Amino acid sequence: MRRMVAALITVAAMIAAPALAAPQAWLEANKGAVLREYVDLLRIPNVASDLGDIRRNAEHISAMMEQRGLAPRLLETENGKVPPLIFGEWKVPGAKRTLILYAHYDGQPVTPEQWKVTQPFSPLLLSGRHDRGGKLLPFPSPGQPIDPESRVYARSASDDKAGVMAILAAVDALKAERKRPSFNLKIVLEGEEEAGSPNLQELLRRHKSVLASDGWIIIDGPAHQSGPPQLSLGVRGDVNAELTVYGPVRPLHSGHYGNWAPNPGMMLAELLASMKDENGRVAIAGFYDDVVPLSEAERASIAAVPPPDAALKRDLGLGWTEGGGATLTELIQLPSLNINGIRSADVGDKSRNVIPATATAALDLRLVLGNSPQRQVEKVRQHIRQQGYALLDREPTMEERLRFPRIAKLTSEQGYPAERTKAEHPLVRDLTAALRKDGQLVVLPSLGGSLPLYLIREELGAPTLVLGFWNHDNNQHAEDENLRLQNLWTAISALSSVLTMK
Amino acid sequence: MRRMVAALITVAAMIAAPALAAPQAWLEANKGAVLREYVDLLRIPNVASDLGDIRRNAEHISAMMEQRGLAPRLLETENGKVPPLIFGEWKVPGAKRTLILYAHYDGQPVTPEQWKVTQPFSPLLLSGRHDRGGKLLPFPSPGQPIDPESRVYARSASDDKAGVMAILAAVDALKAERKRPSFNLKIVLEGEEEAGSPNLQELLRRHKSVLASDGWIIIDGPAHQSGPPQLSLGVRGDVNAELTVYGPVRPLHSGHYGNWAPNPGMMLAELLASMKDENGRVAIAGFYDDVVPLSEAERASIAAVPPPDAALKRDLGLGWTEGGGATLTELIQLPSLNINGIRSADVGDKSRNVIPATATAALDLRLVLGNSPQRQVEKVRQHIRQQGYALLDREPTMEERLRFPRIAKLTSEQGYPAERTKAEHPLVRDLTAALRKDGQLVVLPSLGGSLPLYLIREELGAPTLVLGFWNHDNNQHAEDENLRLQNLWTAISALSSVLTMK
Repeated sequence: MRRMVAALITVAAMIAAPALAAPQAWLEANKGAVLREYVDLLRIPNVASDLGDIRRNAEHISAMMEQRGLAPRLLETENGKVPPLIFGEWKVPGAKRTLILYAHYDGQPVTPEQWKVTQPFSPLLLSGRHDRGGKLLPFPSPGQPIDPESRVYARSASDDKAGVMAILAAVDALKAERKRPSFNLKIVLEGEEEAGSPNLQELLRRHKSVLASDGWIIIDGPAHQSGPPQLSLGVRGDVNAELTVYGPVRPLHSGHYGNWAPNPGMMLAELLASMKDENGRVAIAGFYDDVVPLSEAERASIAAVPPPDAALKRDLGLGWTEGGGATLTELIQLPSLNINGIRSADVGDKSRNVIPATATAALDLRLVLGNSPQRQVEKVRQHIRQQGYALLDREPTMEERLRFPRIAKLTSEQGYPAERTKAEHPLVRDLTAALRKDGQLVVLPSLGGSLPLYLIREELGAPTLVLGFWNHDNNQHAEDENLRLQNLWTAISALSSVLTMK
Repeated sequence: MRRMVAALITVAAMIAAPALAAPQAWLEANKGAVLREYVDLLRIPNVASDLGDIRRNAEHISAMMEQRGLAPRLLETENGKVPPLIFGEWKVPGAKRTLILYAHYDGQPVTPEQWKVTQPFSPLLLSGRHDRGGKLLPFPSPGQPIDPESRVYARSASDDKAGVMAILAAVDALKAERKRPSFNLKIVLEGEEEAGSPNLQELLRRHKSVLASDGWIIIDGPAHQSGPPQLSLGVRGDVNAELTVYGPVRPLHSGHYGNWAPNPGMMLAELLASMKDENGRVAIAGFYDDVVPLSEAERASIAAVPPPDAALKRDLGLGWTEGGGATLTELIQLPSLNINGIRSADVGDKSRNVIPATATAALDLRLVLGNSPQRQVEKVRQHIRQQGYALLDREPTMEERLRFPRIAKLTSEQGYPAERTKAEHPLVRDLTAALRKDGQLVVLPSLGGSLPLYLIREELGAPTLVLGFWNHDNNQHAEDENLRLQNLWTAISALSSVLTMK
């Protein structure tokens, strides 16, 4: 497959080479080749926990970079047993600064039985959204026109192999024009972002000089819901926790023991319900206390964002939203508590008449400037204790089960804090100017999503900015993830402009 | 396999035949053969929804009955496409009454990945409870002693193929003594009890004369938690319902949309939490209103039950119980609301940072005399509406999603009411006397569990009594279902006494 990809790139380059003046013209002539290369990349499973798959991705992408003369190498941890960073470089003699374009090549875990359109690593092309009548299309032959509204369905179609592909295609566009970037270009592709980047700190420390730069541009996340690309000066932090409450040591017959033996599903429901008020505001004591207020410039940039709320509610079928009337743009500037999932025994065909032994909720805490992951989780712990629970970080012993009426277990990952670059930073100015030249742009103080960008500042002293291009209705992190092709074309065009920005 | 079973039975009968005076002596000499026949029966998968499997069970059990001269036949519905009743008979000329012994040969659905000891239809023998150090044992060779504390692990080991086996072994014991029952014996084995007996009414109507009797003795359910067999004069009714609440039409990224888009897991938690107070008493308006009060005799029989609560709490690892201090025996005389399971997206390794699209709870309502399934479900519906929900019995349309802030779906099965035979009925007296002669006995007005026994009174005019023999810690309806062998031996001995009762 790799050989075929290489051949296609060569063909594409040959078609593209003569007399094309602008990246847009190159793109117009090469969409089919880009699409094929991107789809081949999506075929390689990329859940971060499967190191074999991750290595296959790293080798495949290295070959793609090699073809482009980007001198790829894998940056490893000391033990070499975790997903490596893929590093590439385009040195520009005389350039005044060095910038890193970042994307990640791993994807979220998959639950194949929930996918309706295709299987996660069997990409398919549809004429539009599958839930709005999108029909299966053949992948286009060379030269055939491609409907920009058509969508590729696969895990990482958006998040974030589209980022990998857009960066490499923007490089192609420049090379086809025989241009060079206006800065020393470094490319860094991470392999375990969706697993929470547990080894990023070691990787940044070990490869500090290789990764020296004046700033990182993170190509990840959606465009603004109103359509244009979205430049975020920061990201929220994130920490995941898992909460389990305990009923009887074994599942019991619900007829013989139901409503004598405590039901962990009901206990969990009560516990979760106590965590928010009716407007969705977190009711945990001190939850919002550490938040650093927004600056005037940041508040102004929020006010300038076209409010996507009404259109989004229509699209998502929502008759109300949390936050008591606050807008989405305002709410993502606050810390949040989300239930990612709940499980207690079974429902549907597999449901049985039992009192389950346990009930578990997966929780997701997003953090803003001022929050620390540990402090935020401690507030949740304190709240659970205040509801009368003995709180453990492991399974209870029999002795503990008998001693404490209510027992919960809360385990949490290390998580990471939020990060934000000031609106006045020169890189913000230059990037904004380049992107506005290419089309509309939305600028936000912080993305709702999370990336461990604080590490880049702490370890390397570099500022970070996040550029989101993908359709907001991309089912990122869920089943039926997809990418609308026009968003990929926009990204390639925009990144071509960024590469040559003043 | 069937031929082997038949051969074993013949061998067992030959060993048993000479000079054994009492059923206990026969049993002592034939435990190995009974165990082998029972284990062979457990090997045949018996989830009611798999008609092929169910037919294999029906044929296998028919052959077992044929060997015993019980003239088996399958009683079918009109279309013949549902699990049949297996019917057998031992006519006793001159007998004054006809009694039916009932058991069911289907089992609860299985979730194989949750089984720890073995797979559901690969029975294994352990020296004791697996969670208390029970070790794997070989199945005993003929003549080898069998530890009565050892347990067979398999789906239906207790519920209710043990019932099938105990009835047939009690017949063997009588035949070995060359005795006859004191009544015309009919045997009825149902094949879709765990599916809610959806066709039992038609079967009883179609085969009314074949099924004519003076009473049914139901062999199903556990012994009392204090150890002795349990005679229940009634059963609770039951109706299952499934409750789903709706968030966005598709799962959303929890960073980009979390705490703006309503989280269905949180909404479900709030809704469930509103259904019970802190003592586990159902807070739904009118939930306890229709209950027919217990008679003085029934209250007296409850007072005579040795309270199992303290021992059960120790066994089950419970630091508290619902009911504000009421005992288990008291609480199962009331209607109940149990959460059988909850599911919203995923937890654990498969958890993703999403706002799920839906959250679902499987509910189980147990009913007592006076409750109707429809009225009881309607109270739940009314309660959900009172919490501000638009309540549907199907998926919401997009238009409904946008119109109603909160939408829930509640679907319910038909369910069935409770049933109870009066304590003064002659059959209660005779059965109690026969069983007390054999050992200790606990008598309860109603079992906590459910069976559609009202149908037998409504369609055939016959009273029903329920005899429970199986160890209460049998994981009935859950993974790792098991049977303690002494409970099987006790059942065979007790049923031998019942067969010859005055």
